[in-house]
Amino acid sequence: MGNFHILEQAEAVEYARGIEGLFPAGVQLSSREIGNGNLNRVFQITDSASGRGLILKQALPYIKVIGESVPLTLDRVRIESEALRIQRELCPDLTPKVYAYEPDLALIVMEDLSDHVPMRRGLMERGRYPSFGGQIGTFLARTLLFTSDLAMDLQEKKQRVKAFINPELCNITEDLVFDAPYKKSRMNIFEPPIRDAVERIWADTELHLEVALLRESFLTKAQALLHGDLHTDNIFIKPDSMKVIDPEFAYYGPMGFDIGTVIANLLLNYSGQEGWSKDAQERDDYRRYLLDSVRELWSQFELQFRALWNGHPVDRMAKTRGYQDLYVAKLLQDTIGFAGVKMVCRVHGFIHVADIERIEDAVAREQAQRIALKIGAALIKRNRSARSIEEVLQIALDAVS
Amino acid sequence: MGNFHILEQAEAVEYARGIEGLFPAGVQLSSREIGNGNLNRVFQITDSASGRGLILKQALPYIKVIGESVPLTLDRVRIESEALRIQRELCPDLTPKVYAYEPDLALIVMEDLSDHVPMRRGLMERGRYPSFGGQIGTFLARTLLFTSDLAMDLQEKKQRVKAFINPELCNITEDLVFDAPYKKSRMNIFEPPIRDAVERIWADTELHLEVALLRESFLTKAQALLHGDLHTDNIFIKPDSMKVIDPEFAYYGPMGFDIGTVIANLLLNYSGQEGWSKDAQERDDYRRYLLDSVRELWSQFELQFRALWNGHPVDRMAKTRGYQDLYVAKLLQDTIGFAGVKMVCRVHGFIHVADIERIEDAVAREQAQRIALKIGAALIKRNRSARSIEEVLQIALDAVS
Repeated sequence: MGNFHILEQAEAVEYARGIEGLFPAGVQLSSREIGNGNLNRVFQITDSASGRGLILKQALPYIKVIGESVPLTLDRVRIESEALRIQRELCPDLTPKVYAYEPDLALIVMEDLSDHVPMRRGLMERGRYPSFGGQIGTFLARTLLFTSDLAMDLQEKKQRVKAFINPELCNITEDLVFDAPYKKSRMNIFEPPIRDAVERIWADTELHLEVALLRESFLTKAQALLHGDLHTDNIFIKPDSMKVIDPEFAYYGPMGFDIGTVIANLLLNYSGQEGWSKDAQERDDYRRYLLDSVRELWSQFELQFRALWNGHPVDRMAKTRGYQDLYVAKLLQDTIGFAGVKMVCRVHGFIHVADIERIEDAVAREQAQRIALKIGAALIKRNRSARSIEEVLQIALDAVS
Repeated sequence: MGNFHILEQAEAVEYARGIEGLFPAGVQLSSREIGNGNLNRVFQITDSASGRGLILKQALPYIKVIGESVPLTLDRVRIESEALRIQRELCPDLTPKVYAYEPDLALIVMEDLSDHVPMRRGLMERGRYPSFGGQIGTFLARTLLFTSDLAMDLQEKKQRVKAFINPELCNITEDLVFDAPYKKSRMNIFEPPIRDAVERIWADTELHLEVALLRESFLTKAQALLHGDLHTDNIFIKPDSMKVIDPEFAYYGPMGFDIGTVIANLLLNYSGQEGWSKDAQERDDYRRYLLDSVRELWSQFELQFRALWNGHPVDRMAKTRGYQDLYVAKLLQDTIGFAGVKMVCRVHGFIHVADIERIEDAVAREQAQRIALKIGAALIKRNRSARSIEEVLQIALDAVS
């Protein structure tokens, strides 16, 4: 990383201009910085004449937390770039095009997706995405199955585990998702009214045992190449298209972590509906839509995962009678457990979600936080006994009834 | 590996002479080649005057299988040397001293253990080793706990997983232990009289499902740094001392694999007693001793593993109430399952054990093979429901009753 320096805007524009085959010679490019600059600098660079553009994302060698800057490896850009390449090979329609990767500058240049919206914003505006279940089901089924021992050469898979060892970014998840929310910690941020609910979580040893088991799985189960951070700000969407971005947390972990993260974020929005719908009917309708999306996501995932498993020349032992059923049953349980921890950490942990945080009415916001904690804790407690996705939906219904 | 060449005996002696602080100047050294030369060249080099000696082990860049030579990575020497260093730090009394490691020559020079015997030979001569349970229990408890997330910095552990990615040697285990024995394969070698028993194993889909699950665990569960090949030829023993050698199969895998391998080898000897004892009373006595050793090994392991867990500053989440009990219960189940597959593969797989193979009487040999298959298959089938080590002993008793 000897040549690393932080790019100025003008330099970013010149870099973009130099990428072959993208812009005509002598093009007039405009540029603006987007993103919050906590981890990365992100420029959107556009040819005003044609409207064509790209995103230039440079990783910064630090992360800003609680007012201080902590060093953070630039190796995450290698990991992101390599994960994007693999995901794009497996799901060309569901991932952004990558135009350039510059390791020395920790730089990735990719497709501009500004005709899409971040799915979190879409959901906050009560958008409906009828293709989402199929799209994310495809993304999950293909990226998880085809990077696992079920469908890879076992030796190549091990080399890939090695290439995706990602200690610093996994460490962020280990601290913020699996640790801090379950104890008194300066990494927890919450409003006074929900202190009683947070303290119940700190004191709930039955819950802590399940979290310890889920964390063990996150630490040891090298099942598939995960995206690692598949929340709804990393899913860009419009009615006919969905793209998954930002796999810098990618590493070999338990498949259920990715699936559970998507479900958690749908259910966080579900919780947040407390504050977004003025009209009770509208709120209930949208909540029903969200639950249908969770059901559809899992069904589509399971359908495609099994079809790929059955239809492709996979690992001989994977054809063992009864193995697929057991595998999928355990995967659902993992998914439910990880969905639970991903909900809890977003309520009183270090990084919250706009779906709840931006509710202006304090009473509604508190209520939304309590609903999310209730669903999250119930999912965690049920993870080892859950038998169907319907249990998830029932837990969500019970939380608002 | 640019400077690699196969050492001649004279060169090996000169190399040994050059190691500082081992032999007096001008010493007269004698040398003999030991080992079968399938994977490694091994020289024992001795100062005839003092009787002091050492072992010089050079890895060969190929492995001899079924009459042909297949390339095999010399990186296994780096892995062996690094694993020996870690094991020796954790268990200085239970591992050989290493005097030199020469990566270019794929060479390790270590303590001569010829005052010990390989434990397999010891057991075949009906030796008794009353300290063995405590010794191997210590080795397992310390090497497994202290290389796991339970007691390591989580980020360092990930770097260690990376350093011990060992695809080629894991591949040998994957093929010979988890695959070939359960199908018709040229990697299976067995005598005609047991064909019916072998064919039953090839046809037993209930068994195959359990093997598929155990194999999944071997492929994905990066729990601790395993020895990876802990059979009784790799345990050197005398009444007051035990040393574990040859960790070239080391990688991050499920703890139960190492524990199960030791138990499997005790039970293979138990099966072989069919042919070694002329006297029924003597045979039964020795079998009882072997079962006591299995019980003692597990009890000592569990006792020490729990004591280390409780007594050391381990991972905060590892202190979660109920977690240790669940962890140890699952560990026993893994152990029993892996013990089963390690028995089965040694009966009709590619590499047999002398405990059974060297029985001269054909009827007794066949009987021993059947007993071993019966115990192995029963352990595999019981692995997910087993609750105590006593079940293992009962299965072994039933097999010879």
